[in-house]
Amino acid sequence: MDWLDQVKWDAQGLVPVIAQEAESSDVLMFAWMDREALRLTAELGRAVYHSRSRGKLWFKGEESGHVQTVHEIRLDCDNDVVLLKVTQQGHVPSIACHTGRHSCFFRLYRDGQWHDIEPVLKDPDTIYKQNA
Amino acid sequence: MDWLDQVKWDAQGLVPVIAQEAESSDVLMFAWMDREALRLTAELGRAVYHSRSRGKLWFKGEESGHVQTVHEIRLDCDNDVVLLKVTQQGHVPSIACHTGRHSCFFRLYRDGQWHDIEPVLKDPDTIYKQNA
Repeated sequence: MDWLDQVKWDAQGLVPVIAQEAESSDVLMFAWMDREALRLTAELGRAVYHSRSRGKLWFKGEESGHVQTVHEIRLDCDNDVVLLKVTQQGHVPSIACHTGRHSCFFRLYRDGQWHDIEPVLKDPDTIYKQNA
Repeated sequence: MDWLDQVKWDAQGLVPVIAQEAESSDVLMFAWMDREALRLTAELGRAVYHSRSRGKLWFKGEESGHVQTVHEIRLDCDNDVVLLKVTQQGHVPSIACHTGRHSCFFRLYRDGQWHDIEPVLKDPDTIYKQNA
């Protein structure tokens, strides 16, 4: 059986994906893959997602330069969630989030409110203009 | 605005949730929450999910004893994914997965196949019978 057939794709043909930084173990972001995105990720050794908003393949870093080199691809017990161990390229310290922050998970719940607790490392306008 | 209203619930009223072990930084599991599950998680300081298969609240550990104490609740840049930092209770070394393994992400892709690379720490039959 093909390894791609063993993944339980949802009704939209997608699977949720968690990207974890190999060096720090920080959870960087969450995204989705379709079958072609997962196949390409394994083949190229870089993260390729499916953009639900744009309805197409999203080669992470194609605009920002913030490419993710993939060291491990893991699948969970139910075969319906993927975990990537990645090196986040393109900036030091690393930036995975489109807001210019290290991780997308920068909002912390405390006392009934969400607090943004991580700094913007680079102005998003600069990130996306430089390669435009 | 209520912090629960700031979460972008999907069409089913759910949000994806990543549980990361605070001590090891290992990604333990992936699950879903509805509004009540997230409210209870914050209130009780333990992980409460929404079981899609059973269609109801799932107090993690209610059968297995493998409760997750919650240290942090984080939300991502799009307000549609939650990350928990937890201590996985109930067994040493810790078991989060219903298969009796430490983490649900025990399948590793290599050379065109998925390989189960993490040991079963406790027989699942034993896990679920002891509290039945």
